Amino acid sequence: MKLDELDTPALIVDLDRLRANIERLQRYLDAHGIANRPHIKTHKVPQIAQMQLAAGAVGITCQKLGEAEVMADAGCTDIFLPYNIIGEAKLARLTALARRINLSLTADSAFAVHGYARAAQEAGLVLDVLIEFDSGMGRCGVQTPAEAATLARQIVAMPGLCFRGLMTYPGNAQADLFVRETRALLAADGIPIERVSYGGTPTMWQAHERSEVTEYRAGTYVYGDCATLYAGAMTPDQIALYVLATVVSRPTAGRAILDAGSKALSEHPSAQNDYGLILEYPQARLTRLSEEHGWVDLRACANRPPIGERVRIVPNHVCTAVNLFDHVFGVRGDEVEVMWPVAARGQVR
Amino acid sequence: MKLDELDTPALIVDLDRLRANIERLQRYLDAHGIANRPHIKTHKVPQIAQMQLAAGAVGITCQKLGEAEVMADAGCTDIFLPYNIIGEAKLARLTALARRINLSLTADSAFAVHGYARAAQEAGLVLDVLIEFDSGMGRCGVQTPAEAATLARQIVAMPGLCFRGLMTYPGNAQADLFVRETRALLAADGIPIERVSYGGTPTMWQAHERSEVTEYRAGTYVYGDCATLYAGAMTPDQIALYVLATVVSRPTAGRAILDAGSKALSEHPSAQNDYGLILEYPQARLTRLSEEHGWVDLRACANRPPIGERVRIVPNHVCTAVNLFDHVFGVRGDEVEVMWPVAARGQVR
Repeated sequence: MKLDELDTPALIVDLDRLRANIERLQRYLDAHGIANRPHIKTHKVPQIAQMQLAAGAVGITCQKLGEAEVMADAGCTDIFLPYNIIGEAKLARLTALARRINLSLTADSAFAVHGYARAAQEAGLVLDVLIEFDSGMGRCGVQTPAEAATLARQIVAMPGLCFRGLMTYPGNAQADLFVRETRALLAADGIPIERVSYGGTPTMWQAHERSEVTEYRAGTYVYGDCATLYAGAMTPDQIALYVLATVVSRPTAGRAILDAGSKALSEHPSAQNDYGLILEYPQARLTRLSEEHGWVDLRACANRPPIGERVRIVPNHVCTAVNLFDHVFGVRGDEVEVMWPVAARGQVR
Repeated sequence: MKLDELDTPALIVDLDRLRANIERLQRYLDAHGIANRPHIKTHKVPQIAQMQLAAGAVGITCQKLGEAEVMADAGCTDIFLPYNIIGEAKLARLTALARRINLSLTADSAFAVHGYARAAQEAGLVLDVLIEFDSGMGRCGVQTPAEAATLARQIVAMPGLCFRGLMTYPGNAQADLFVRETRALLAADGIPIERVSYGGTPTMWQAHERSEVTEYRAGTYVYGDCATLYAGAMTPDQIALYVLATVVSRPTAGRAILDAGSKALSEHPSAQNDYGLILEYPQARLTRLSEEHGWVDLRACANRPPIGERVRIVPNHVCTAVNLFDHVFGVRGDEVEVMWPVAARGQVR
């Protein structure tokens, strides 16, 4: 099938760029002795996870238990869940999953740790646990090295659990300091910190500047998006994903309406209050989205697309845009080579 | 199954409120002699469309051709598509659909009209077409009554097409004026405007103040959301949908993290820059979303939820939140009575 024959809106991935992006980060992390554990939340496609593993990733990262189940079904055997798993229903699924793959977990509270311990003991398993700490984002995570050390000692004391290390997002100088202080606190107890997991595509090329990191979780790097471009972590010719859309209305000389709105691109505004980059018309501004319409201000464009013309849009935030589609089409040149189900999409639980 | 047994995040609809919302708008539109043609883009659930039809709707409205195909498969026999259908692939599907149901279409350009005419002639069908006009939103639609009249004359002149009337969103006083002026222009040609279709939940209770409207398209009214509350179109005890979420972290005294982020609630900020209303903690502010985390500022709350507590979140914009889930659970009291697939979700084309 030719790209021209695909109807819009459609999620398109450039297969050569995808492969190059996967290999580029792998080479970099290999060169610096950092384990690569890519985050599949961006693509949610088992076939891409397999490409990442084939390139040398030690395992993958999933944000939701349901994503991990889909990836395990697809043959991924080493999965990290950097997310507190709370509640009996999920804990039962967690131990079922831990029986069939190498699973490592995260906790930032005694509540989460007690749940894991109870589930591990009931299932007769040992679960690997990392502690999440806050390196400045102000989201989850223990707040101080003292809290981290206390929680680590609780994990160590619990049958069924094995304390493995520390996890944060993003990885930065503050994170290194936190890890060193926690390591010093735990040294007295003889508790080692084996794994230190940092993440984030915007800062991926600075991973080697971190003194403590042992593994890196990047997600967006496979595709790239406007945020990655603005962060300087990828160049325009490395962006591997776009939403193909059609001009469905030209109500005025200065305005075009596309068939891709907030249900195709998601609603993540850029700092310039745009909703994506139109590759064919870089002077155009995607200024507003309604659910199924993208509003394009063409006033700065010398050439302007007529109704029926198709354009490629790089989303501001690719992870939430991809999450809206059931399929992604892999293309090479003008040939559509593959249609992959976004198999872990909708795995919200 | 009990509501307590449902894992989170989950999309929950209160079945009694849903029914009451459907019946309330139907009664109001019936009382004013306005045809009810609800927009299914909000729920995307065939069973709810059937409830709307059973209550007295003349047909339904779908925004995408794919949604209309799903609803036709589910037995809906009268569908309005208020969206320019552009491109040969969609036109082929359009005529296939028009063969099996009563379908009416929209155009705002000669380009769209020519496509419909070509498709109708090739299929040996007559297609009903309404003209979209801009009543101030600045999205799609012809800009002036003169443009509308010119396009109407083109439609009338084309074999295979039947000009039915005018369509806009939202319906307002400006819309009435536009319709009257267009009617006057077309009177000389003996071209009647039979159908005048307005839409929008925020303004639905003002529909009877419109002099020209013959049918009304509301979508959000079945569920309601924060935007509907702020617009004064529904009261808190009429809101029929919420996202059930769990507190997964309490990193500080003033902060809770929920397992519902932008992939469960969508990223539509309110004027106050909140991302939803937490029913159990109205003083709490859902200030930020990452993909799978909701950040809750609890500092104004006297009582604060511990880890593991479940809360109900009313989304800011229910249409984009619902679009993220594959299923919605229908509850009555604490009993989960039904699980409906969000069958038309992902029908982006």
